[in-house]
Amino acid sequence: MVSSSLVYPSPKTVWGKLSQALIGKTLPNEKLSEEKFSVFWGLPVLASDAISSVAYAGEEILYVLVPVIGLLAYGQMFHIAMAIVALLFILVFSYRQTIEAYPCGGGSYIVAHDNLGTLPGLTAAATLSIDYILTVAVSSSAGTAAITSAVPELLPHRVAITLFFITLLTIGNLRGIKDSSRMFGIPTYSFIFAMLIMIIYGIYKVHVGGFIPQAIRTVPEFTGEITLFLILRAFASGCTALTGVEAVSNAIPNFREPAQSNAIKVLFLLALIVLFIFGGTSYLATLYHALPNPDETVIAQIASQVFGASPMFYIIQLTTALILVMAANTAFTDLPLLLSLLAKDGYMPRQFAQRGGRLNFSNGIEFLGVSSAILVILFQGETHLLLPLYAVGVFASFTLSQSGMWVHWVRGKAAGWRHKAAINGFGAIVTFITVLIIGATKFMHGAWIVCILVPVFIFGMLKIKAHYSLVAKQLSLPISEKSAVGTIRADQERHIIVPLASLNRASFKALLYAKRLAGYHSIRAFHVSVDAESAEKLRRKWSEFGLDVPLIIRVSPFRDTISPLLDYIQSEEEAFRQDDLITVVIPQFVVQKWWHNLLHNQTGFFIKNRLMHDPRVAVVTVSYYLKEG
Amino acid sequence: MVSSSLVYPSPKTVWGKLSQALIGKTLPNEKLSEEKFSVFWGLPVLASDAISSVAYAGEEILYVLVPVIGLLAYGQMFHIAMAIVALLFILVFSYRQTIEAYPCGGGSYIVAHDNLGTLPGLTAAATLSIDYILTVAVSSSAGTAAITSAVPELLPHRVAITLFFITLLTIGNLRGIKDSSRMFGIPTYSFIFAMLIMIIYGIYKVHVGGFIPQAIRTVPEFTGEITLFLILRAFASGCTALTGVEAVSNAIPNFREPAQSNAIKVLFLLALIVLFIFGGTSYLATLYHALPNPDETVIAQIASQVFGASPMFYIIQLTTALILVMAANTAFTDLPLLLSLLAKDGYMPRQFAQRGGRLNFSNGIEFLGVSSAILVILFQGETHLLLPLYAVGVFASFTLSQSGMWVHWVRGKAAGWRHKAAINGFGAIVTFITVLIIGATKFMHGAWIVCILVPVFIFGMLKIKAHYSLVAKQLSLPISEKSAVGTIRADQERHIIVPLASLNRASFKALLYAKRLAGYHSIRAFHVSVDAESAEKLRRKWSEFGLDVPLIIRVSPFRDTISPLLDYIQSEEEAFRQDDLITVVIPQFVVQKWWHNLLHNQTGFFIKNRLMHDPRVAVVTVSYYLKEG
Repeated sequence: MVSSSLVYPSPKTVWGKLSQALIGKTLPNEKLSEEKFSVFWGLPVLASDAISSVAYAGEEILYVLVPVIGLLAYGQMFHIAMAIVALLFILVFSYRQTIEAYPCGGGSYIVAHDNLGTLPGLTAAATLSIDYILTVAVSSSAGTAAITSAVPELLPHRVAITLFFITLLTIGNLRGIKDSSRMFGIPTYSFIFAMLIMIIYGIYKVHVGGFIPQAIRTVPEFTGEITLFLILRAFASGCTALTGVEAVSNAIPNFREPAQSNAIKVLFLLALIVLFIFGGTSYLATLYHALPNPDETVIAQIASQVFGASPMFYIIQLTTALILVMAANTAFTDLPLLLSLLAKDGYMPRQFAQRGGRLNFSNGIEFLGVSSAILVILFQGETHLLLPLYAVGVFASFTLSQSGMWVHWVRGKAAGWRHKAAINGFGAIVTFITVLIIGATKFMHGAWIVCILVPVFIFGMLKIKAHYSLVAKQLSLPISEKSAVGTIRADQERHIIVPLASLNRASFKALLYAKRLAGYHSIRAFHVSVDAESAEKLRRKWSEFGLDVPLIIRVSPFRDTISPLLDYIQSEEEAFRQDDLITVVIPQFVVQKWWHNLLHNQTGFFIKNRLMHDPRVAVVTVSYYLKEG
Repeated sequence: MVSSSLVYPSPKTVWGKLSQALIGKTLPNEKLSEEKFSVFWGLPVLASDAISSVAYAGEEILYVLVPVIGLLAYGQMFHIAMAIVALLFILVFSYRQTIEAYPCGGGSYIVAHDNLGTLPGLTAAATLSIDYILTVAVSSSAGTAAITSAVPELLPHRVAITLFFITLLTIGNLRGIKDSSRMFGIPTYSFIFAMLIMIIYGIYKVHVGGFIPQAIRTVPEFTGEITLFLILRAFASGCTALTGVEAVSNAIPNFREPAQSNAIKVLFLLALIVLFIFGGTSYLATLYHALPNPDETVIAQIASQVFGASPMFYIIQLTTALILVMAANTAFTDLPLLLSLLAKDGYMPRQFAQRGGRLNFSNGIEFLGVSSAILVILFQGETHLLLPLYAVGVFASFTLSQSGMWVHWVRGKAAGWRHKAAINGFGAIVTFITVLIIGATKFMHGAWIVCILVPVFIFGMLKIKAHYSLVAKQLSLPISEKSAVGTIRADQERHIIVPLASLNRASFKALLYAKRLAGYHSIRAFHVSVDAESAEKLRRKWSEFGLDVPLIIRVSPFRDTISPLLDYIQSEEEAFRQDDLITVVIPQFVVQKWWHNLLHNQTGFFIKNRLMHDPRVAVVTVSYYLKEG
């Protein structure tokens, strides 16, 4: 049966109960419109990705600069951070236009697909899909790093903690949109608040309080030079901060009405918060000379100097951990949406387009949870190794999206199109330059993997599309086929075969059913005998019961009971009218416990499996239920 | 369908071709009588277990004695070895009588079951089954040890080599009995021959040639005392040498006529060979002061002193390795036979009673291969750790078998019964004492595991028997049910339901089939709609096609398309006569490549799965075949 449908675990089973306890009760369709974001609750869900990246983006910049230019890194870092914030504002203005033009959600895939064509659309979709999976792996690993910075005893359990976070996120998202915006909003606001306190108090402590920060480790004087390549590499590393912008324009349908203006509000709020926190922490890193190292994050180093071992230090670490995990949540909001769009267009398995029991795209959520967990296990929670794979894809999709918007305005020539095209065109150029910078400086560090994965994803999507098109073509039923209905007559011939191993209650039930089905028509019982004795026994019982059904017995010298049946059916098919089916009625009995199945030859199952692929056979199973005890 | 049948892999598939290349062509039933042992070829297959145990039994004795009493161990070892050989002869005379009394194979299970009752029979079966699995693991590990003694570079690959041997044995045995007796006979005879040469030349070299052996490592003088417990422990360790005797009496049906006297000949030949080789090597160990150590076997130490680094040293090691692997083969001959007997009696899954393509009990062979491989992996090829688990079971089954024989003679009171009962009674007492000795001295070293496993096995076998009895009872069809045949009338009502998601070629085919099946009777199409639009579309197409089949549409607010169908079927069942079935015709399409299945909702599959367990429903699948490209 071809259909778009759901299968829920039966609420009577253990799995069903567990699933309901974790995910909540199944919701009816009418509930769909209720589950929407306000600006206040939408901001944390969609902006946490961008806001949280300050927790590692600054550190990534220092990782590039410090080993080469030592103390000089801090000055450069602040400039680079400001360049990235400028880039963010360019993106915000560009995406503001996308939101206005695409009220139903304008992710890169839709914009590129609509305006540039299939292949650019799929490219955007592929890079975004990879990035969302990476986001979950990277952000939850970084969240774990925030915790292990505060409690170093937990370092050996890094991978387990990260997987725990991913599991929590998956379950939280399976519960549904609104639940998750509540669940995730509070930590995001706590983080913003905690960071504001740290920035203000941190600056006050040095400039007003006269505190002289002492670097925990002395920064060695390096002899390296400040080259353009170095600055660009640091810039490329910092660009991971800008991955959350796409999320807002993609998620417009999740906003309450007026959805577009709400989304734009969120977009601007997001940019302001990033400006303040990213700028502020970069400045603090410069003041307090934090040094990147794998066991203690830069934020942790700043916080420990600003607050000492006071509770605020732990609050900073905790809220950082939480918002990083929330950032992973952005991907959980977005990737399932993207996959559902792709599935609707036939580029992804159509299961991704179905809303689950809680009205979200549960298959996409589960897919994201599993694939990011695999990444974390493969990379043993080393965030750092995944980051180069990440930024190049984000900016490639930005470029495709902005170019698409440029084409949109230029083609449409609506009022003010020149102004709008200029903004998106500028966005496209800036993001394209960023792609080139990231690609050039990070290619050897892993960006090449993305260059292989994206074509593989695209190839897969095209294959899926080809299959769906083929199926649709072959299944489509033109009205010309209507005549077939007329050829059916009630007294038409029916050919029924009942294979049986012996005459017992199960096969007797099947036989009686087949007789009733056959009406006045042809029905035959078929038995394969391995030894003459059992054949004779069956024949005797047959006549005892006075069964007026012809019994055909074949001897199988090779003890194979299936092939003779298949041969017989084939010979029947050849002797038979082309447009009718042969009905094979297979008796089977149903056991009560799973292990009982191991105790029986699954002959019926194997026969079914073989015949299932024969378009000229209709396979009927008649079950006989075995009671226990 | 309840039946005893086989499913061969289709010879067209890769798996089918590979399987034929490895295992050989399927043999017809008539070939069964040809595949039998002569004395000459039967001896190596059945005796290799007993003969090969000299390769480790002597070493096991030294492992117990040397750490306590140092050099004094060698004298004691020879005495203990002779005691074990005496025990062997008692067993041979006892089993000679078993063979005469049970011409169709008198394994411990049969003898104990027949004469002592179900529980003792199952106890024997359980201990034997465990032992056969252990034999394969222990012997192939010991074979690997012989190789790594000669080529120490291979030590790190111990587990892989052992698994390779087990795979070879499994394939060899799947090929069939005769093939395997050829395949395995030559190495056994080579081993016997090589050992004879070593014993004769080794004694000659010292006593005539005046060679003074020098212990490779100096044996430290230990202060321990020769206690009775120590001697008994050493004796218990050496008893692992006697595990092959059961094999001969179990395998009588595998012998050529006259099977019984051929089996007895093999039994005596076996005892003589063990006497000579075990006695001889024990004497050599005494002469050459071989010291047990995990990296070089005792046999290897003796051989290297007797032959130096000449080719004979390597021949000894190679033939030892081969016969140990062959010894594992004894279990491959015997366990499948035992399992088939248990299966025939309903204590094991009946698949074990089927002869495979090559006329052997292939399921038993595969089961043994897999379970022993698991043991080897779990114990990382450490033979030594498995041995204590092993001997206690062997002697428990000996005791049960001999006690059974004693009851047999005492009950039967045939000519000479007193004499025969005396022999088996004596055997029973001696083996029972051995059980006590092994149990007492080895309990803490692992024999306790057997004491847990045996009851678990017995419990499992009783559960299986209970299930089969229940099934047989519930399925049995008394002649009184004959009247049901008369109630079937050709014009009887038929209720047919066709669930469909849309009207396409696949569901149309199912619908036409169902109409033909229904004759003049009730047929309904059933559609679950998630949105009103698709329902309206279907209704329109329905009238376009002029389908005179009532279309029932249900709306599912929870997007679950299966439950409404199940509800509908249930309501039909309630409205319906008790003794008839509702026919549900499920359209499905068959895709060409496995991954295409991932692209479709398996709704049909889930519906089938749910309905399969409903005894009031007959499920029909009508397949529509999708062509590629």
